[in-house]
Amino acid sequence: MIKTYAVRVFYEDTDFSGHVYHANYLKYCERARSDYLRVVGIDQNAMFAQGLAFVVRRMDCEFLRPARFEDELTVETRLLEMGGARFELAQAVKRGEEPIFSASVTVAIIDAQGKPKRIPHEFAQKFQR
Amino acid sequence: MIKTYAVRVFYEDTDFSGHVYHANYLKYCERARSDYLRVVGIDQNAMFAQGLAFVVRRMDCEFLRPARFEDELTVETRLLEMGGARFELAQAVKRGEEPIFSASVTVAIIDAQGKPKRIPHEFAQKFQR
Amino acid sequence: MIKTYAVRVFYEDTDFSGHVYHANYLKYCERARSDYLRVVGIDQNAMFAQGLAFVVRRMDCEFLRPARFEDELTVETRLLEMGGARFELAQAVKRGEEPIFSASVTVAIIDAQGKPKRIPHEFAQKFQR
Amino acid sequence: MIKTYAVRVFYEDTDFSGHVYHANYLKYCERARSDYLRVVGIDQNAMFAQGLAFVVRRMDCEFLRPARFEDELTVETRLLEMGGARFELAQAVKRGEEPIFSASVTVAIIDAQGKPKRIPHEFAQKFQR
Repeated sequence: MIKTYAVRVFYEDTDFSGHVYHANYLKYCERARSDYLRVVGIDQNAMFAQGLAFVVRRMDCEFLRPARFEDELTVETRLLEMGGARFELAQAVKRGEEPIFSASVTVAIIDAQGKPKRIPHEFAQKFQR
Repeated sequence: MIKTYAVRVFYEDTDFSGHVYHANYLKYCERARSDYLRVVGIDQNAMFAQGLAFVVRRMDCEFLRPARFEDELTVETRLLEMGGARFELAQAVKRGEEPIFSASVTVAIIDAQGKPKRIPHEFAQKFQR
Repeated sequence: MIKTYAVRVFYEDTDFSGHVYHANYLKYCERARSDYLRVVGIDQNAMFAQGLAFVVRRMDCEFLRPARFEDELTVETRLLEMGGARFELAQAVKRGEEPIFSASVTVAIIDAQGKPKRIPHEFAQKFQR
Repeated sequence: MIKTYAVRVFYEDTDFSGHVYHANYLKYCERARSDYLRVVGIDQNAMFAQGLAFVVRRMDCEFLRPARFEDELTVETRLLEMGGARFELAQAVKRGEEPIFSASVTVAIIDAQGKPKRIPHEFAQKFQR
């Protein structure tokens, strides 16, 4: 399943080169992941209150084409694998069909001491629905 | 007393207009305030562990001239008044003698419930040294 | 007329205090202004190609209450006055009816040399429609 | 040769988890690269005036440990290879000897049309000095 999330490029996203500042694609991807979690019914505030949090462990990023002020972009998020304490995701930022940015992302769950935790069984069920 | 803090303009600070994005002057001012606190011996992590935090209540900002990539700027911070639960500060961002940005800032101390707290007596002493 | 714009709070917007970082309310307000311009039919990319740009001259900000991760906020923008080379706006960020942030904002139009320019007559018409 | 660049963690860098927001390590690395260029005598403003710009093509990122407010970090940048139109760099963010973040980075030079350009011969000389 591919989950899509819409982003518009504002002043804050660009730099003096006229393009979107490279690190901001990671923000777009994080917004898309948080939105995905919310939609499947995972409440990150409730998790955090229990001392659990998602963290990005690895992110391999390709910056393919520049995006510009007022572009309407789409972030596509695909859950590739969920196992043990890790999620593997593929994310892509597109302008229409044009690829702008792509990343393979590993996300883990940690406790308040920073120790990795197994993914709760109910999470797997929520993603499968 | 005027406390100065140096800032260099990087890609992340600019937008597609070629200038520093306006909200980033507030970041520069906050870096200068945190640096000021650190220098006078106020440890914000220790405060936070006790449930206390500084918050900006009001900030009146004038954007006077544009700054650009690789500019070397100075943030000047002057403590105008400290009383009850509030600090009043004047902050200015300059490029050499050229004024770029100026603000009058009101900062308060709050507890973990967001209630205003009196400024600890020792803080006043630290600023007067 | 009040124009509203919806914002959701993501990780990137918060700081370690658990609240939205103060400077980010200025970003929310800028997104709302850019959206307003787009909706009334003012194309900032086209303006920029002609050497014209909007700049914020003054912004008086009140930080009223903290916002938090996943809050759904609304930015309300009211055009108070448009005359000569300046717009005066009132902007407010709210969570439901609760006021979070408010600002009075002065925006000017400048040319590529940074000189103030009169607001084009057609802009006034676009806002009045 | 390893070039080092010092970074202090401010409010703006953290998120509500209490740690540095993951995308901000890319900002730290970019500051370190811009500083490196400046130190070896490459003027990015002059390049930009000639229609040339550096762009990040690829960045493989590992997020190893969390950094926190007021941490003093060091960004280490090593130029691994420079050939044709690409630089390969290894960058690491450390707190003392503790590794926090590491990345392998590919940077290219493009012209105003976004076409890749050969790295000017003088740049190679500047890095070898």
